[in-house]
Amino acid sequence: MNKRAIFYLFSLLLLVMGCAMATAVPVAWLMRDSGSVILRFFFSSLVVCVCSSAVFLKVRRRKGEPEFKTGSREGFLAVFLSWMGAALIGAIPFIVIGGMRFADAFFESASGLTTTGASVIESLTVLRSGDTLVGGLESLPASLLYWRSLLNWLGGVGIVVFVLLVMPLLNPGQSGQQLYNAEVPGLKTTSDQATPRLASSIRIIFFVYLMFSMLSTFCYFVGGMTFFDAVCHAFSTVSTGGFSTKTASFGYYTSPFLQWTCIVFMILSACNFTLIVRLFVSRSFQYFKDEEFKFFLGLIIIASLIITFLLYFNCTTGINSTDGEIIPRSFGNYLRTAAFQVVSLITTTGFTTSDYCFWHVTAAVVILFLLMFPAGCGGSTAGGMKCARVFLAFKLVLSEIRHCVFPRAITDIRLNGERMTASVISKMMAFLCLYMMLFLLVGTILPFLSDMDMTTAYSASISCLSNVGPGMGYVSPNETYAWMSDSAKYLLSFTMIAGRLELYTCLVLLLPSFWRR
Amino acid sequence: MNKRAIFYLFSLLLLVMGCAMATAVPVAWLMRDSGSVILRFFFSSLVVCVCSSAVFLKVRRRKGEPEFKTGSREGFLAVFLSWMGAALIGAIPFIVIGGMRFADAFFESASGLTTTGASVIESLTVLRSGDTLVGGLESLPASLLYWRSLLNWLGGVGIVVFVLLVMPLLNPGQSGQQLYNAEVPGLKTTSDQATPRLASSIRIIFFVYLMFSMLSTFCYFVGGMTFFDAVCHAFSTVSTGGFSTKTASFGYYTSPFLQWTCIVFMILSACNFTLIVRLFVSRSFQYFKDEEFKFFLGLIIIASLIITFLLYFNCTTGINSTDGEIIPRSFGNYLRTAAFQVVSLITTTGFTTSDYCFWHVTAAVVILFLLMFPAGCGGSTAGGMKCARVFLAFKLVLSEIRHCVFPRAITDIRLNGERMTASVISKMMAFLCLYMMLFLLVGTILPFLSDMDMTTAYSASISCLSNVGPGMGYVSPNETYAWMSDSAKYLLSFTMIAGRLELYTCLVLLLPSFWRR
Repeated sequence: MNKRAIFYLFSLLLLVMGCAMATAVPVAWLMRDSGSVILRFFFSSLVVCVCSSAVFLKVRRRKGEPEFKTGSREGFLAVFLSWMGAALIGAIPFIVIGGMRFADAFFESASGLTTTGASVIESLTVLRSGDTLVGGLESLPASLLYWRSLLNWLGGVGIVVFVLLVMPLLNPGQSGQQLYNAEVPGLKTTSDQATPRLASSIRIIFFVYLMFSMLSTFCYFVGGMTFFDAVCHAFSTVSTGGFSTKTASFGYYTSPFLQWTCIVFMILSACNFTLIVRLFVSRSFQYFKDEEFKFFLGLIIIASLIITFLLYFNCTTGINSTDGEIIPRSFGNYLRTAAFQVVSLITTTGFTTSDYCFWHVTAAVVILFLLMFPAGCGGSTAGGMKCARVFLAFKLVLSEIRHCVFPRAITDIRLNGERMTASVISKMMAFLCLYMMLFLLVGTILPFLSDMDMTTAYSASISCLSNVGPGMGYVSPNETYAWMSDSAKYLLSFTMIAGRLELYTCLVLLLPSFWRR
Repeated sequence: MNKRAIFYLFSLLLLVMGCAMATAVPVAWLMRDSGSVILRFFFSSLVVCVCSSAVFLKVRRRKGEPEFKTGSREGFLAVFLSWMGAALIGAIPFIVIGGMRFADAFFESASGLTTTGASVIESLTVLRSGDTLVGGLESLPASLLYWRSLLNWLGGVGIVVFVLLVMPLLNPGQSGQQLYNAEVPGLKTTSDQATPRLASSIRIIFFVYLMFSMLSTFCYFVGGMTFFDAVCHAFSTVSTGGFSTKTASFGYYTSPFLQWTCIVFMILSACNFTLIVRLFVSRSFQYFKDEEFKFFLGLIIIASLIITFLLYFNCTTGINSTDGEIIPRSFGNYLRTAAFQVVSLITTTGFTTSDYCFWHVTAAVVILFLLMFPAGCGGSTAGGMKCARVFLAFKLVLSEIRHCVFPRAITDIRLNGERMTASVISKMMAFLCLYMMLFLLVGTILPFLSDMDMTTAYSASISCLSNVGPGMGYVSPNETYAWMSDSAKYLLSFTMIAGRLELYTCLVLLLPSFWRR
């Protein structure tokens, strides 16, 4: 194990986190936060930057030294430590400025960085001082709300890009590829890479993301948000994170224009990046040639329509909005509300405009529950199993059923015309199986740690594993995770990180053989 | 498609059902049921026997005719039609004698034959006359209660043996083998067959089953049941069915001896038959050499102990018994109660002595929920995914995790030392995947058909798919399925049959290519 390489990478990452934290200082000043908030943000970022720089300078490669020799083990460990370290650094402002307890701050930070968007901040959150956070989310300084959204943005894009740009420095080629496999949640076939040169495609992805962020900020601003809220919501949308600056989440903004804009950007952000890169590089619009995208879009359209009709025939007096008002019954309103929750959950964003648990239509809720499993497309910031895998699993099952009747028929499993090898299929099925196992396992352990019913336990499990945010029962959109015990919060924090790192990257660390020389 | 062969088999099966029904006539007479009940049973069985004999004589193979040419398609169709036909015949007494509506009667009959044990009979069941069944289960004539248990017994053993003895007549070798694969829920490897000659091993299994039935009848009788109840409960135990003659299920019998006896027989009935056959043929006790058995027993022991401790520390004033009494707090009582529900659910029997939903310990309930997935061992009457498959899936996942770190390591998946081929693994993973898909799908459709919460929907789904019986929420042990809409009952009836036939056998019929010439 090459510890120096890991420290090198780790310190570089913390430096980036420190610099990101420093951007909160001007935000705090502009948003007229109190002087103590500005000072605390300044000193927090200073400490992080100084410490990480010191470590960085100590372990960096000096002139004449050979390149770091690293293998996949260093890669896995570095990725895991980076996420853990980033989550710890991300928790500092919540502790120092928000006065939150460590378990809460770590949960909030991990939730932000993994683009989950599950929150423990509400008016009943118990602070370190023993008081509750009267006023909830809105009572926090603006700079801390900015930090939450920034964590989403950093988690969704920044860290992926950072790791992809930095890791090749450690060991060009193999290790970068290894991490690309571990990090970017695509299917691990070579054809998934948009251009042969990783770094250049990463630069394009980064550019596209910046552009999406700016475009959605602009749209939100034009739609009526303040500039501050527009930036924060843009960060959370593009990263499929879901942290809002309002307790009512996106439901605070009742404007249909804003809600439809958000729906469009959530869908775009959950599409495979390589499609976007192809759009820029080869200027070809291949969305509708991509089976995964068609499956993903099909799920959204079918689920939205079913839920719209369910609402239309069951909720004759209107439905609740997260801002406490009633959304009047009309096909347009119901379609928008249904599409918003469907898209928010399937893209693993987690914004909400209406608490589906108060619709009292279980049929609609179970559809939303189901959508948290496949989630977005591979190669995007969305969490979950990924549509491509679920689509391939359907194909495999169909092929095995056919095989019963026609045992001699040749049955290839193909995605976009490309034949999947047996080892890719086996790895994929093992992944899906592991996903379901972890979902059931976490849902089973949760009630041991904190008193809750089955619906809450299993929906919290899948919501955190797929990096969605809200769940059902006592973690429904109108609720938070604040009431859970600390141990349950730690379990869910690790579940989010494991889900974000596509399980394997975390679970290899549990192998005894991983640590042997 | 050779329709004559299918009719031949089908009529033979109905004849067996008719003969089985005829045995209820002396039971009704002995148990002093009213004359009209005796007459109705007599005429029902007469009609079934006459009709099926007529069809049988018409389609049977005449001297000099060549053997029926049948392939796997005939096999699949015959199996499915046999189960549907048997469920329809089984429903007749519930309609004619119990006065139940068709949807209820079909559900009860399908539940019996698939050894599920889910019931719609309670004091609120609406009859054809529009009245409710005042008095519930205990108000039914004894012969009808006997018929319920007999359906369990026929489903669990009789039909399997029948099909295995009759199918070789149609097309020796291939077709019998095909059905053995489709019907007996073992893993489809040749080494699973205890002896090379199928018919002889079936005879041994049948003998062992008869012996188990008689032995458990004897034990129950000695333990204090009436002879009638002992026979009925033995039928339901050995077939892992779970129909009881009492509303309080097995909880009616508070004797620890009876409950422990039942636990032992439930475990024995959920073990792989081939182990039992080996015990008789080669007189070698190989239980503890079998990885699946060890996994199965391990799950039971661990789950029972965890639930015992959970109850011991959470339920300080005793727990409910299904007969309405309180089970006082003591380690022995709690261990017995915990072990009973654990064994009952994992073996997919479905007897209960205490309604776990009223323990108000979610941690215990989620463990019981989890146990419904793996269920019993392959090659037994238990439903579910089967322990061997779940165990192999664990091995595959572990091997894939290892593969991430050591890509060049050779990783074989073995069960009892035997290497599983890639195609067996792929079929198995597709099966598990299909199982989870159907579980989620049925749980999602149920709330559309009948108003219910998520816990009820998903637990009813897995309970029927795995042929368990009781679930959680409004289908908990103290409740029945009577309140559901007819469409929900039909869906669950088909779910039970699909689960019983290991999914593929049913689902091939949905392929358009299956029906093409």
